[in-house]
Amino acid sequence: MKIILTLILVSTGYAPMAQSPGDSVMFHSIYTETLGNGECYDRLRELCKGVGNRLAGSPQADSAIAWGKRTLEAYDFDRVFLMPVEVPRWVRGTTEKGWVTSSTGKSEMPIAALGGSVGSNGILKASLIEVKSFAELESLGIDKIKGKIVFFNKAMDPLLINTGSAYGGANDVRSKGPSEAAKYGAVGCIIRSLTLAEDRFPHTGATRYEEGVVKIPAAALSSVDSRALSQLLKVEPEITFSLQLDCQDFPRVIQYNVVGELFGSEFPDQYIAVGGHLDSWDIGEGAHDDGCGIVQSIEVLRTLRAIGYAPRHTLRCVLFINEEFGNDGGETYARIVAEKGETHIAAIESDGGGFTPRGFSMQGSDVQFDWLKNQSSSFEPYNIHQFRRGWSGLDISPLKNDRIALFGLLVDNQRYFDYHHSNNDVFEQVNRRELELGAAAMASLVYLLDQSGIPAE
Amino acid sequence: MKIILTLILVSTGYAPMAQSPGDSVMFHSIYTETLGNGECYDRLRELCKGVGNRLAGSPQADSAIAWGKRTLEAYDFDRVFLMPVEVPRWVRGTTEKGWVTSSTGKSEMPIAALGGSVGSNGILKASLIEVKSFAELESLGIDKIKGKIVFFNKAMDPLLINTGSAYGGANDVRSKGPSEAAKYGAVGCIIRSLTLAEDRFPHTGATRYEEGVVKIPAAALSSVDSRALSQLLKVEPEITFSLQLDCQDFPRVIQYNVVGELFGSEFPDQYIAVGGHLDSWDIGEGAHDDGCGIVQSIEVLRTLRAIGYAPRHTLRCVLFINEEFGNDGGETYARIVAEKGETHIAAIESDGGGFTPRGFSMQGSDVQFDWLKNQSSSFEPYNIHQFRRGWSGLDISPLKNDRIALFGLLVDNQRYFDYHHSNNDVFEQVNRRELELGAAAMASLVYLLDQSGIPAE
Repeated sequence: MKIILTLILVSTGYAPMAQSPGDSVMFHSIYTETLGNGECYDRLRELCKGVGNRLAGSPQADSAIAWGKRTLEAYDFDRVFLMPVEVPRWVRGTTEKGWVTSSTGKSEMPIAALGGSVGSNGILKASLIEVKSFAELESLGIDKIKGKIVFFNKAMDPLLINTGSAYGGANDVRSKGPSEAAKYGAVGCIIRSLTLAEDRFPHTGATRYEEGVVKIPAAALSSVDSRALSQLLKVEPEITFSLQLDCQDFPRVIQYNVVGELFGSEFPDQYIAVGGHLDSWDIGEGAHDDGCGIVQSIEVLRTLRAIGYAPRHTLRCVLFINEEFGNDGGETYARIVAEKGETHIAAIESDGGGFTPRGFSMQGSDVQFDWLKNQSSSFEPYNIHQFRRGWSGLDISPLKNDRIALFGLLVDNQRYFDYHHSNNDVFEQVNRRELELGAAAMASLVYLLDQSGIPAE
Repeated sequence: MKIILTLILVSTGYAPMAQSPGDSVMFHSIYTETLGNGECYDRLRELCKGVGNRLAGSPQADSAIAWGKRTLEAYDFDRVFLMPVEVPRWVRGTTEKGWVTSSTGKSEMPIAALGGSVGSNGILKASLIEVKSFAELESLGIDKIKGKIVFFNKAMDPLLINTGSAYGGANDVRSKGPSEAAKYGAVGCIIRSLTLAEDRFPHTGATRYEEGVVKIPAAALSSVDSRALSQLLKVEPEITFSLQLDCQDFPRVIQYNVVGELFGSEFPDQYIAVGGHLDSWDIGEGAHDDGCGIVQSIEVLRTLRAIGYAPRHTLRCVLFINEEFGNDGGETYARIVAEKGETHIAAIESDGGGFTPRGFSMQGSDVQFDWLKNQSSSFEPYNIHQFRRGWSGLDISPLKNDRIALFGLLVDNQRYFDYHHSNNDVFEQVNRRELELGAAAMASLVYLLDQSGIPAE
């Protein structure tokens, strides 16, 4: 029994090791390289300023893919390849306007169509009805809603310490709100942006029409304008809102995940993947979401190669295409990995912004989580303290099986939703050191995983 | 023996307590109040935009003191009073110019006189000599330095994870550089700004002339200009630098620490102080340094009162005047406290910027540090993980004695020196939530200290 167990462990590349004094030397070496000679900030500038935003299906995403391939090739990784992925193609169009008409006249409010919204077919003008939840929609019923534009004025909860939880608690109105409103005869839908900032940036993001329900145009309003609109409605309930959107869907197209590899010397057919998503929404520059994750993932491989590290397992950085609007890159990657039988022992995702890293989340077995917790003292000198079970990222989520451990880089996410999916998500909002510290933390985790392997259960 | 010990403990207000389930309820209540109804961000806007920068000794500092008193009085704390403090009065003046003259002509470089610098008495023009350390100065000697402007081009070390350590390792050139250079006959001194950012903001800060050494004018250059100047010197060593500064010293004046109190019900003559410094350097708005510490300290008392908490000890918020240029506020406060026999069991300072809090530093006995570590599980749900011994702040440092425990709010300090002492330290660089989370962490620590007391040793 013991022999069989040993054989299994060896065959999956797992060799239990006590924490080695060499770890602290390697951590120091990794951090020194990334903070002293790091290139991820320059790569982010290229991606944000040279390519700009890059919605999957768009010509800008084609440019981003070309940039990604060129960048990985320039680093001379052992192998660089493209993996075809079918993605949707939704286009915002050139007209995107919203305005209120009240007793004092017309007042423009900046809006951003939700991703996937239908166009308004000219100007859509209707009275407004404000709600905070689907329950309120139901209680109002078809009589009060029919023919109106539903205004979901639901804020993220500022009392939650984790802004990701606050986002999770509010984004139902964006993803399902338009269809829920349409069920009661609404002709349009506007939502308060999912942000904790008080400013005038509207934040877009995917909406999903329910099959069999009329598709109505839907857009986001900034937090400040949502507050103003709500106040105006209290004193003048008869105001109207006008929407003009010419966004539309086109047939799906083929784009690509971009993959770079450093070959493993001992377990070349066992993989550790590190990645983020190359696509972004089509406003701003997709800097924090997820340009940072992309350049950090590339930096992990660059750093390990620069310090002369020879990996035991094959290390991959994966620039996934289309996380934002269907997770096609992640689904396709997992499918192809399964088809080819490419055993992944771990995958790490960075998709929470390029902020100071705090730790890692993990999806895996108890034994795998124990493994992670046992690494905490190595990370302690680098101010990495959080090791918890939980969601680790959409791109890598389809890889989940009994063998793999999934990790998500946890960062200080207080500011993330100030920028997320808006024109404010630009290169200038990223701090070089915070970005580099994240990359170094990821590279350090990759090193530990590569050295000891990780048990399956 | 046991009886005596018990008496001592009671007489200092210390009643050892196991962690109480009530703590988590109180923490929740504190965080809910500060994140839900917090006023510190609005107070910071008033201080930064209404008063602006406020160097000790300046009329703007008078305005800041008036603002502080008015603000504490409006919160209706149990007692508000001013404590006279003698402070220096140094004035930057109206002319502050630097330029390089090379073979291609004149090129302006933005400079900021170091705090305390003498003026240049018209235009000071001289050749440059670049050094990185005092040792290099010594090795060059008087022959190579006499009659020149010394350019200290010493960067903060980007490899240190803690930016405060990187600052500590580089600020000798700012505090002592001008006098060290003057000893070798230098006629002026410029230094690379103490920042980790690559931009064109010069960062000021105190310099200290050594007694008996000629006082030469001294100014900071931005990191980008320092790099450019260094490169230029390599190809054209004969370039000159011109300085024009009309800063000067005036006689010392009386200003004030501003103090607000909530009376203790059980130990009214035992104090827990929480504070920051009201003065700032005279450029920018002193937002992170240390407007944030000021408004957080006020918010601690406001929050505890707002949730109906009745303190056992007397709680004080102290807005210290002149931390930046002599620590007169801190010295005076400690002297008066000692004269009046006002026992302070603890003091907490926030002077690391209004960034996401990470924990607390502490100066105190082993037993006091054990006390702090025992509180860690209460802070864990709020992402507060760092509890370490070490420097806790200049304002409160003169209070140190055998009884008191000193605490410093530890924050995510990666961006701090991007702003510190420069025109870039403005209200817009502060995130509301990060500021509030710091205030809530401080209020929670005050609550714990007030409930259990803290042993002396």
